[in-house]
Formats: sequence, structure tokens, C-alpha cells
Amino acid sequence: MSASLQQSMLEAIETELKRQVARLDQTKVISFHEMLTYHMGWTGEGAGTQATGKRIRPLMALLSVASFHSPNHDAKTDWQNAVSAAAAIELIHNFSLVHDDIQDNSELRRGRKTVWTKWGAPMAINVGDALFVIANQSVLDVSNHYPAEVVVKASSILSQACLELTKGQFLDMSYEERTNLTIEDYWPMIAGKTSALLSACTEIGALLGYANISQVEDMRLFGHHLGLAFQVQDDILGIWGDEAVTGKSASSDLVEGKNSLPVLFALEKNGAFANRWKRGPIPHEEVAMVANLLRDEGAKEYAEKISEAETQTALDHLASADPQGEAGKALTELANMLLKRKQ
Amino acid sequence: MSASLQQSMLEAIETELKRQVARLDQTKVISFHEMLTYHMGWTGEGAGTQATGKRIRPLMALLSVASFHSPNHDAKTDWQNAVSAAAAIELIHNFSLVHDDIQDNSELRRGRKTVWTKWGAPMAINVGDALFVIANQSVLDVSNHYPAEVVVKASSILSQACLELTKGQFLDMSYEERTNLTIEDYWPMIAGKTSALLSACTEIGALLGYANISQVEDMRLFGHHLGLAFQVQDDILGIWGDEAVTGKSASSDLVEGKNSLPVLFALEKNGAFANRWKRGPIPHEEVAMVANLLRDEGAKEYAEKISEAETQTALDHLASADPQGEAGKALTELANMLLKRKQ
Repeated sequence: MSASLQQSMLEAIETELKRQVARLDQTKVISFHEMLTYHMGWTGEGAGTQATGKRIRPLMALLSVASFHSPNHDAKTDWQNAVSAAAAIELIHNFSLVHDDIQDNSELRRGRKTVWTKWGAPMAINVGDALFVIANQSVLDVSNHYPAEVVVKASSILSQACLELTKGQFLDMSYEERTNLTIEDYWPMIAGKTSALLSACTEIGALLGYANISQVEDMRLFGHHLGLAFQVQDDILGIWGDEAVTGKSASSDLVEGKNSLPVLFALEKNGAFANRWKRGPIPHEEVAMVANLLRDEGAKEYAEKISEAETQTALDHLASADPQGEAGKALTELANMLLKRKQ
Repeated sequence: MSASLQQSMLEAIETELKRQVARLDQTKVISFHEMLTYHMGWTGEGAGTQATGKRIRPLMALLSVASFHSPNHDAKTDWQNAVSAAAAIELIHNFSLVHDDIQDNSELRRGRKTVWTKWGAPMAINVGDALFVIANQSVLDVSNHYPAEVVVKASSILSQACLELTKGQFLDMSYEERTNLTIEDYWPMIAGKTSALLSACTEIGALLGYANISQVEDMRLFGHHLGLAFQVQDDILGIWGDEAVTGKSASSDLVEGKNSLPVLFALEKNGAFANRWKRGPIPHEEVAMVANLLRDEGAKEYAEKISEAETQTALDHLASADPQGEAGKALTELANMLLKRKQ
């Protein structure tokens, strides 16, 4: 039963995350530790499952491990040896969220005050840094179960993903001042901001599952294209998603001036939407009208086609990697679920 | 000749740093790359040797490598295999400087505008993150010359130092709001902020020089105590150093309200200085008087004694590690020079 395997993995991930963050659970820095446990969703106001996020990335990583196993390994439990690597990826994701929130001036995340809102930007920068450090330590911890060569490789993959992450973040921030963006500018940004870490999940997972080289490469590409598809889907929901469905105010991406794929598509067309966009911020009252304008210019249809094509490419690579057993099935289901998510 | 060995090392370090940072030398992120090369002192206004810093940490690391070598290694060139690890430490140091400058609201560093002053805090957070990422990649690069087990060990030592760094940074920031600090609060702060990275230099250096376990431990302790002595010395200069000698405005640590060792010593004595300190910020006009008050209460003498004792402990551990050849001699000289620095 796929649900119970995933449940076991999610529990193991949460336990491991807590164990890793507990590196700061010491007398003199106890309130520092609390800042991290607050951000991770375990403590403070609003703590609980709705505050932790879905842990999709580490789950993808562990499912990838469990989908490949050499004959002399036990697929049922092998993934447990890789939990600290999966936790590392989730910690990287959270480090980037803490810094993102400062950079974007976001006061809320998952309905709770962000770290910088509660403790100020200087402390929040340090909280993000600490999550990053602990992520590095967490991935090295797989040396308890894997040969050092594999540990170095996993750590290299994660570091390369982090470099892509900072590049994507740079592009995103540098785009804020530009009005002449094209679709070509979109892909390197989301490749860094969204795909890099997802492809690290599936690549590291396959590596730690002792998949062969071509399988590892297929899994990397599966994660990469899944990330692209996922981000385009997120862009569509950010403009046309029902408020109740997306859980944030409808069309808020238009209000926030986000350089999403539909917007860049329409800017490149340089029609009525582009004229309106270049005139300045879109207030809430105009949002429905501008969203319709975008749809009429074909931006929604275009983005949907791209998302479908990327999904298909992702699933083709997954199929080519030939993941086995219930974990393999769960990966396919999870990919489909992520891309058709209505919540 | 020790000077020429050090010169060769410094040149190799600078070349390696540039090569590592060039991971971002790509068309789409060229101005991101420029932010890093500006901070490193290579480009932009005021670029040059006075802007790069002294690269003391990577130099200590390479001298440590060159001080130990198994019979089947060539001490004259062995250190070249470890240059990327030395560069990693310098990159960590610089990542922390970029974030520190945001946290402390410092507009100048080495006489030049800080990264956040030039490009804003959001970009500067990302610049620091990128330096951190590249540091991680840089240390993994020693896998070209060392067994994977040694790479994992070096990477673990560096990560642990980074964790100590974030703890020290947390303590430093949390102390800003406190007026009841004691000397006991001082040591964990500077152990994290100053000693952690210095001890990583000498420990990783000895490890990569194939020193034996007890030598590696002695070298770690050498770096640790050297860091403590160095910081106390810095505290003394920050209050009683001549402006021309320290290169910053005399007694500025008093104006900035820095919780240095002499200050904490006098706060614990709870005399005239403590009364004045608790009444609020010290303006420039009062600095000479307050510095004299501190001296009269024995704070300078106390700090000097501590610094001397830590220096002696450091040198004892260095002697116990028994570093060889001209690199070994250079380490002793460098330690003495650092602690008697007048520039």
C-alpha cells in the first residue's frame, strides 16, 4: 500500500529533520534553536502539520531511493539509510524560504509570521544560514551508510543545485527592475528557483538507491522537467486559480507584478496586456479584467500547453528510468498529483 | 626562504579563489558574478591588494598542510593539492562578512562600500549565500587529490565551524539588548565568531598534510587558542589602539557599544565604568575619558594577560604538533606576528 510507505517516509523525514536541527538545541543558544523550530513548523503560534509544508522534496528523494535497489539490498528498508540526505534537501529548501521572505519583504508564510517579521532581518539572515549549514551536515551524515565516494557525489549534486538556486534568485530580483523581459528570460530563472532542487531530489535519490548511471540521469531529468511543469502550473494558478483552491488571494501574482510565464508570453506579444502592465502596478479592482485580458491574448492556453509538454517529458524520463515496486508507482502518482493539484 | 613560500601560497590562493568564484562567470548572471568579485576585492572602485584582505586563514591552512607530510609525499609541492580547501575557508570567511555587514548595518569595509550599500540587502543576502555555496563546492574539489574519506572529513570540519559561526553570530546579536553580561558570556561568542574558522584552517590543513591524529588535534587547538588570543588582542586595539595604527577611528568599539572582553570585565566589576556604560551610548567626546576609566579599573591589564595566556597555550599546542621545515617555522612566526600586529 503506497499510502503507508509514504506515511512511514514522512514520519522518518520529520524525525530526522528534528534530529538535525537539534544540533542547535543547547543551553546558550536555546532561543536560536527556537527560531529554527518555529520556521520548520514545530513550535510557536500556529505550529502543526499545516505549518510544516508538505515535505514533497524529501519524499520524492526517498521514493527515488526506494525505486532502485541492487539485488543485494532490501528495497523495503533501504530508504531509511538515505533519510539524512532527504532531510538535507528539505533544509536547503527552508533556508531559501527564510532568505526569500526577507528579500521579498513577505510578512506571512503558510499563514504565520515569517522569521524576519518575528525576530528582525539580521536574526533571520542567520537563521537561514544555520539551516544551510545543517543541511550540509545532514547530507554528510549519509556516510554512516554509504561509501565516501557516494557521499561526496551526493554533496556535490546538492551544492550544484544550491548554486543554481542563487542564480535563479539573482535573476528573479534583477527582473524586478526590467520591463523588456521575454519568455527566454523565464526558463533560466525557474530552472534555478524551482527545478534545481527538485532534480537534486530525484538524482540524489537514484544515486543513493544504487541506480545505474543512465537511470540516475533519467531521474535527474525527471525532476528537472517536473520542476518546470510544476512552476508553470503554479504560475497559472497564481493568476487564474480560484481563491479557495489556491489558498491565497485570487490573481495575487498580478498584483505583486510577478514575472510569470503567462505575463512574459503576453509581454512578448506586446498587445493590450503589455501596454497595461508597463503602465504600473495593478490594483485589486483591476485584477479580474487584466486576468481576462491575459486569457484572451492566449497566455493561459500557452502556459497550459507548456506545462503539459513538460509533464510529459518528465514522465517519459521517469518511465525510461524504470523505477520499481510501490515506490516507483508512488513517484508517478505523486508527479501527476502535483501537476493537477487543486489544493 | 619563508617569505617566498608564503608568496607562492598567496598567489595560488588568489588564483584558486578567482577560479572558484568564476562558477558564476556566465552570460546571464554576469552582474551577479561582479558582485562577488567586487566583494573579494578584485573589481570595482578601490579594487586591489588593500581591498582583498590578508588571506590569513587560507595561508594558515596551506602552511599547516606543508608542515606535515608522510615520507612518500613531497612537502615542497604537496600544499598545492590542498589549495581548493584553503580557498573554501576564505570563501566562508567572506560569506560571513557579507552577511555581517547587513546585520551590523555597516556601510564600509576596508574603506569601500559594502555589498548591501551598493546593491541593497536582498541582493547582498544572495551574494553571501553564493559565496557559501561556492565554499562548499571548493572544499569538495580536493577530491581530485585526496581519498573521498578525507574529503568527507574536511567538509565535516568546515561545516561544524560554520555552525559555530552562526551560533557566535546569534550570541553577538542577542547580547546587543542585554546589559547584564559577564565574562562567561564572552567566550562562547568569540569561540564561534573568531576561533571556529581559524581552528578549521589548522585542523583541515593538518588533515590534508596527512598529520597523525594527535597532531591534527594539536593543530586544531593551536588554531582555536590563536583565534581567542587574536580576538582579545583585537578588542584591546579596538579601545586603546592608536587611530593610525588600527586604521579605524580610535576607541570606536566604545562608541559602537561592542561587548568586548575589557568591557565585560568592567561590567562584572560593576564600578564607575559599568555605571556609565549602562546609562547609554558613549559619544566621541567621552571616548578618551571612558577608555581611561576602563584602564584604571584594570580591564586593559586583564585582557593583555588573557591574550598572552591564550597565545602561550596556542604556541604550546603548535610545538606539540611539531610542524616541520620552513612552513612550520612560518606558522610560528605568523602566530607571533598576528598577536603583536600594529597594522
